[in-house]
Amino acid sequence: MTTITGVRARDIRFPTSQGLHGSDAMNPDPDYSAAYVVLSTDDGLEGHGFTFTIGRGNELCVAAIEALAPRVHGLDLDTVRADPGAFWRHVTGDSQLRWLGPEKGVIHLATAALVNAVWDLRARADGKPLWRLLSDLSPAELIACVDFRYLTDALDPGQARELLEERAPTRAARIEEMERDGFPAYTTSTGWLGYTDDEVRRLAREAVEEGWGDVKMKVGGPPADDAKRAAIIREEIGLERRLMMDANQVWDVPEAIERTQRLAEFEPYWMEEPTSPDDVLGHAAIARAIAPVRVATGEHCHNRVMFKQLLQAEAIGVCQVDACRLGGVNEVLAVVLLAAHHGVPVCPHAGGVGLCELTQHISLFDYVCAGASLEGRMLEYVDHLHEHFLDPVRMRDGRYIPPEQPGYSAAIRGDSLDEFEYPGGAAWRS
Amino acid sequence: MTTITGVRARDIRFPTSQGLHGSDAMNPDPDYSAAYVVLSTDDGLEGHGFTFTIGRGNELCVAAIEALAPRVHGLDLDTVRADPGAFWRHVTGDSQLRWLGPEKGVIHLATAALVNAVWDLRARADGKPLWRLLSDLSPAELIACVDFRYLTDALDPGQARELLEERAPTRAARIEEMERDGFPAYTTSTGWLGYTDDEVRRLAREAVEEGWGDVKMKVGGPPADDAKRAAIIREEIGLERRLMMDANQVWDVPEAIERTQRLAEFEPYWMEEPTSPDDVLGHAAIARAIAPVRVATGEHCHNRVMFKQLLQAEAIGVCQVDACRLGGVNEVLAVVLLAAHHGVPVCPHAGGVGLCELTQHISLFDYVCAGASLEGRMLEYVDHLHEHFLDPVRMRDGRYIPPEQPGYSAAIRGDSLDEFEYPGGAAWRS
Repeated sequence: MTTITGVRARDIRFPTSQGLHGSDAMNPDPDYSAAYVVLSTDDGLEGHGFTFTIGRGNELCVAAIEALAPRVHGLDLDTVRADPGAFWRHVTGDSQLRWLGPEKGVIHLATAALVNAVWDLRARADGKPLWRLLSDLSPAELIACVDFRYLTDALDPGQARELLEERAPTRAARIEEMERDGFPAYTTSTGWLGYTDDEVRRLAREAVEEGWGDVKMKVGGPPADDAKRAAIIREEIGLERRLMMDANQVWDVPEAIERTQRLAEFEPYWMEEPTSPDDVLGHAAIARAIAPVRVATGEHCHNRVMFKQLLQAEAIGVCQVDACRLGGVNEVLAVVLLAAHHGVPVCPHAGGVGLCELTQHISLFDYVCAGASLEGRMLEYVDHLHEHFLDPVRMRDGRYIPPEQPGYSAAIRGDSLDEFEYPGGAAWRS
Repeated sequence: MTTITGVRARDIRFPTSQGLHGSDAMNPDPDYSAAYVVLSTDDGLEGHGFTFTIGRGNELCVAAIEALAPRVHGLDLDTVRADPGAFWRHVTGDSQLRWLGPEKGVIHLATAALVNAVWDLRARADGKPLWRLLSDLSPAELIACVDFRYLTDALDPGQARELLEERAPTRAARIEEMERDGFPAYTTSTGWLGYTDDEVRRLAREAVEEGWGDVKMKVGGPPADDAKRAAIIREEIGLERRLMMDANQVWDVPEAIERTQRLAEFEPYWMEEPTSPDDVLGHAAIARAIAPVRVATGEHCHNRVMFKQLLQAEAIGVCQVDACRLGGVNEVLAVVLLAAHHGVPVCPHAGGVGLCELTQHISLFDYVCAGASLEGRMLEYVDHLHEHFLDPVRMRDGRYIPPEQPGYSAAIRGDSLDEFEYPGGAAWRS
């Protein structure tokens, strides 16, 4: 038996705003940050998890983790294994704390950190990387991880189990394929809004030289600037590579339609976050108007009920789950199942701090057990901050090599935690 | 000139769980709480505001107010008066803090507290109760309070102005009517889930004796219990009074339809919060299935984009804005205008701590300037905690008497603040 005896939350911030890395139309100067949690146990194991923020307010997520900590403190891992869905409902089920969302905002970001840490602990205890742990669970065991509350009008446990059972016999072949070839990725390191035209051209050229198949650029600035940068990138990457565009929520619905149509000559593969992340009907209207360009969204989609509707309304052609915006692994599984049921590819949101490390497990699980196809699937890659992780992502020829170490790849190096702890760490004192 | 020179946030909690006041199917033991803010100015004025929570986690809202305080500190009131919409975008526009929502959860609850406090300050400075201040603004001045971002596909500034201008010439008559007759209310003090059948009967009888026209009960417990309590209340109030039912989000969509249909014999006027507050499409499906029973929701509807969609989808027949869940007065005005444009009555969510005190201003403004009708309009009333307010609501014959004191009626008595401050106040030390 492994019992959780300690929950420590830390405020970790990287001063990324100094280089305008990660700058976009909505977020001009992010300091990529993690509200980081370390679980300790009576038998000397640890579980690491975090949620991702962009700086100020990270302390609120740390405080929310502390408010939720009593829901996790004292849990034993066998109880979690026996009914992982009940575990999730327990963490999210404090009726007074629930009022602060429900299941959204700071309290749900904190839920992600804690839930992810418990899954990291479980995977370490089982000696498996998370994606393999999940791929070794039976359809019934996977279903037991999901809280189907509010989902049954779109997907009930019976339908989800049927989908998983249909794809279970061929899991082994897909595991072998992934271990051999890796999972396809695209790069977002090319087109941040804060970069000059020359930098954009240089980075697009480098992306091609490094073997990237597909690239993403930020849009949402002045229309002429967007077009100029799109032209530069298309010149460098040619027409055979996919070019994704990301507007980071800056447009109203009519404006999103008009602006996407003006960029159509550059053949965007998808338009990401064209408007408010809460606007299901707006995304549906945009999707109808800009087809065949797909609408992509998800990094600010706060829970499974929102994803359910985006899928029901045929508002998205690409499902960008976020490992830290949703309430951790259990809710991510719910959304992956919903997307598979609706035939929409999952292309997780990554970048930030450690999102690449986490989401590789999600994409691998999705391919092995749920989506079971690579068509339209690709995982975002951003080349930031990996050096701070104990088990960083490994890329080869524009693909993610599946992680092999036990856990959820969430652990940040101890010296990095100390250096970037806010406000006391060396990086912030200077 | 009046400049904001101090922002103080306090954690105020009332131990209401001891009496099961406010108990419902989702919230069995709330401790009604306020994350309370006092603005001070260079010329000795004060502005009071708060957001409402139900206990644990109130400290997170206090911390979020402190994180947002720099957006308000140093503001002068003339700047707010000159462009109140820009003021709201400034408070909600810190790009790093925005990540924590956006515009939802803890950070948006804190926004409400601060924005409400600034409006309280402005109304005191102008020597008017808030509803009168708003009713004295021209259509153009009201439009300038609203952030139309993400709304223009449903309502643009021109349409909103036209609506307000059409109703402006008759404002004076409605003000006079309100000052004479008051605004119609209904009571929720009758049917909390934690009460026994005998208590429910006694309270329903008292409600009739006290002159209440309409009452609300909680449902969502075992079906037989809901039916028994509905029968008791109908026996006491007869068929001429409206009986509203509130399920507090406990059902999935198919279950909500079935359970409402089973309660149809008791002729519910509306079914409130039948499912997840995020489920626009679910509410629309329920509305189609249970008509002529109306769907009501809003107390957990976190921003104007969600209300926009509920109205676009014809998912609600009753718009229950919340003065503290939305980002304060500016966003409430946006939703009141959206509802008026769609012809859906606004019946604000009240109760809790001070929500009656705040929402009376909203209903009065709506009637005078926007909705301009009493058909289907009624304001919730719960007889809790009014004694702690400096300018408490005044009821007469089941109607709210319009407030006359300057401000937003938000100020809690100093001795109450000290007694119920958490965890140091006398109420919590014992």
